[in-house]
Amino acid sequence: MSNQYNILGIDPGTHRLGWAVVTGSTQHPQLLKSGCLDLPPRTSSSSYLPTIYQELKTIISTYHPTVAGIEKLFAQHNQKTVISVAESRGVVLLTLAEAGIPVFEYSPNTIKSTVAGTGASTKIEVERMVRLLLNLGNAKLLDDTFDALAIALTVQILKKL
Amino acid sequence: MSNQYNILGIDPGTHRLGWAVVTGSTQHPQLLKSGCLDLPPRTSSSSYLPTIYQELKTIISTYHPTVAGIEKLFAQHNQKTVISVAESRGVVLLTLAEAGIPVFEYSPNTIKSTVAGTGASTKIEVERMVRLLLNLGNAKLLDDTFDALAIALTVQILKKL
Repeated sequence: MSNQYNILGIDPGTHRLGWAVVTGSTQHPQLLKSGCLDLPPRTSSSSYLPTIYQELKTIISTYHPTVAGIEKLFAQHNQKTVISVAESRGVVLLTLAEAGIPVFEYSPNTIKSTVAGTGASTKIEVERMVRLLLNLGNAKLLDDTFDALAIALTVQILKKL
Repeated sequence: MSNQYNILGIDPGTHRLGWAVVTGSTQHPQLLKSGCLDLPPRTSSSSYLPTIYQELKTIISTYHPTVAGIEKLFAQHNQKTVISVAESRGVVLLTLAEAGIPVFEYSPNTIKSTVAGTGASTKIEVERMVRLLLNLGNAKLLDDTFDALAIALTVQILKKL
């Protein structure tokens, strides 16, 4: 069991942060735990940035991820929120760096094609594959959590963990 | 002296972070200390984000700023670097929030017009006014430090500190 990896997938937003820890192997991926930090819409950055920092430290100390995955962010997308999402992302990268956890970054297309076969896959198709791969049945999960699961699975598959 | 403010101006980049602490009053502004964190260009974010976090904590514990100022960042500007600059900015905002320091944010135009009289002022004109206001003479300072000084002076003037 010494070469078992706990892979932390993170989907950072400002007031929402989806996360998931996947373990097992590419052949038998297993969901260890997932969740979504969800803060009231009017929470200021002086409040949500420290919350993200503390919550992520707790997740790390609880589930001991060995590697992490996060989606690449592009300036072209969603100009209204890209600055504040990147600020949250900076706090996430700081927390992972302080814990010495290597981070892999993938574009949305790479994540979709790795999990669901093609970069043109819809959100629904990615969700269906995530459910299948992890035996989630009809479990209710938030979109942000599915995104975090898809990123964790992408790391597991592409890094052959 | 109990109502004397130490104003921390910060100009965050990825591998460079200019900072300055201004004190005194709007009538008699004084430079307490300034500096510029300067990291090798190829330093990775897993290294420079923790460095920014630690350096800023040291600056805060050394110079006890009561308020801070930072330039507003716009997605339209410099699409190549805006994501990574915003990530650094997120770490700066986290550090200030954890220290309980209120942050004021101003657009580049507001900073230029407050310090040098008009939003159309050039970099040279802003630098000349910063030198005059703080009695800097011909002291050699980096551009990033001048930007941090201009932000600190903007907070001092607009908040009447």
